[in-house]
Amino acid sequence: MATDETSMKDIDIKSITNVAADVEQYLIDFLDSRPLPNNLREACKYALLGGGKRLRPVLVIQSALAVGGSLQNALPPAAAIEMIHAFSLVHDDLPAMDDDDLRRGRPTLHKHTDEAMAILAGDALMGLAFELITTKIADSTLATRIVAELATGNNNMIAGQIYDTLPDFEDGVESLERLVTIHKNKTGALLRASCRMGAMTAGANDKQINDLTQYADAIGLMFQVVDDVLDVTQTTEQLGKTAGKDVEQDKMTYPALMGLDKSRDEIERLHAESIQALAGFGESADALRHLSDYMAVRQH
Amino acid sequence: MATDETSMKDIDIKSITNVAADVEQYLIDFLDSRPLPNNLREACKYALLGGGKRLRPVLVIQSALAVGGSLQNALPPAAAIEMIHAFSLVHDDLPAMDDDDLRRGRPTLHKHTDEAMAILAGDALMGLAFELITTKIADSTLATRIVAELATGNNNMIAGQIYDTLPDFEDGVESLERLVTIHKNKTGALLRASCRMGAMTAGANDKQINDLTQYADAIGLMFQVVDDVLDVTQTTEQLGKTAGKDVEQDKMTYPALMGLDKSRDEIERLHAESIQALAGFGESADALRHLSDYMAVRQH
Repeated sequence: MATDETSMKDIDIKSITNVAADVEQYLIDFLDSRPLPNNLREACKYALLGGGKRLRPVLVIQSALAVGGSLQNALPPAAAIEMIHAFSLVHDDLPAMDDDDLRRGRPTLHKHTDEAMAILAGDALMGLAFELITTKIADSTLATRIVAELATGNNNMIAGQIYDTLPDFEDGVESLERLVTIHKNKTGALLRASCRMGAMTAGANDKQINDLTQYADAIGLMFQVVDDVLDVTQTTEQLGKTAGKDVEQDKMTYPALMGLDKSRDEIERLHAESIQALAGFGESADALRHLSDYMAVRQH
Repeated sequence: MATDETSMKDIDIKSITNVAADVEQYLIDFLDSRPLPNNLREACKYALLGGGKRLRPVLVIQSALAVGGSLQNALPPAAAIEMIHAFSLVHDDLPAMDDDDLRRGRPTLHKHTDEAMAILAGDALMGLAFELITTKIADSTLATRIVAELATGNNNMIAGQIYDTLPDFEDGVESLERLVTIHKNKTGALLRASCRMGAMTAGANDKQINDLTQYADAIGLMFQVVDDVLDVTQTTEQLGKTAGKDVEQDKMTYPALMGLDKSRDEIERLHAESIQALAGFGESADALRHLSDYMAVRQH
């Protein structure tokens, strides 16, 4: 890749940080406006406001801007999808699931409060995401489309979690097909919903929505292949989490299934696919292009 | 009460059973239409189809009929609210919550499958409830109103669960006020949403929706007072579950706070209130009246 990595990273981190602050304030204001028990509100805030890249809100907002829409109109689905993402992390961390004590350097919610609160706060975050859409989007045609998209993304994400942790594949499904099915659902579903919802808030036509869906699917899968490659090639220090964990746990990964070289080819292929999907857009989609570039070079 | 209890019970049980079959078939068809992993679909069906009074779907449908609407149009919210109810039971039964092994005489979902599946199936049921509404209601103005109502009911129910199990009341809130707050949210929120959604599918005006909201609030609270009274007055055999559990656990109940006689007065007051709320409706609301009568006499 010929691009200057340093400047690219600077651009993207800046745009991500700006948007993150807007989304966080929006989330705080929304939670403060709801008649919630104080401890539940605090638990929801704890789960929502512990950092993170805000990749999904960024995709919502940048997809809206790509189609000529506004940040303002994109904020409701941007905040809602972050609530869905936060709910999924809270429940994934539970003892009966991944049993994680730490998330982004802080105690997970069930460690910070207790398991009952983590279950209920996760439930509340999902429900509040839908309430937010109907409260904040006055145009009911748009609101219904956004709710449908959010629900589908949410439900496919849950299906992906099942495929990953409680697999129930039909006989004869190849390993690579399984891996793609897991990732397309587990991480891909919310990224896809993000781009589609953002586009919808900007009044995108069907072709624009399809293009952004293809972009989302490509970067979603690429994100996962890069993650798998990094686990093999980087040190624990570089990664900020334990390296080599996948190999140690004998996890199904891209390097394990197709080797490191072919995994890198796959990253290039998906990167090119994501850029190609944006061919019909002008400069307004540059942030999405940079984001894909940035995600593709994470490995180097 | 002068009414003939036996015939009243017969009427209501019959109407409830009829509606239950319609709602159950609708739920099965909907779940079969979704691209879910098979084990997740089975878990959702297990949680949804283990019997139960289907009180919430009955309220949705009878509220629609009271306003002159149709069963057909009321089915989507009737099915959706039952999915929300089922999700809440699955999560309530989890070890970190009430830790129940049995529900309606069968193993609870986490006993039938495992804890991870119960968490995820509960999550999926909530998400699918919202997806059902956007899939099945074509009129987007109505769909948005229904989603808003469903989300508010869901979120208040979760708040009620917090008030009940992880109380965080401000100082100076009296016991009775706490008890009412718990029940208005924990059980009342979904009953209220049921009646309102049913009315909305029938194109009810604001007064009709307000009347049915008052009806729902009255029977919701009455339901709880009756439950508390039954725990004191009935045997385990009559109750079908362990009697005297509330007293044993030193639980805050109506008989404990106001005594048995005043609790019975409260039932009468709420019963009368629910009937009064329906004064503006004709014979089309008779099923709702019978339902309230039936709930009020459960104690005798």
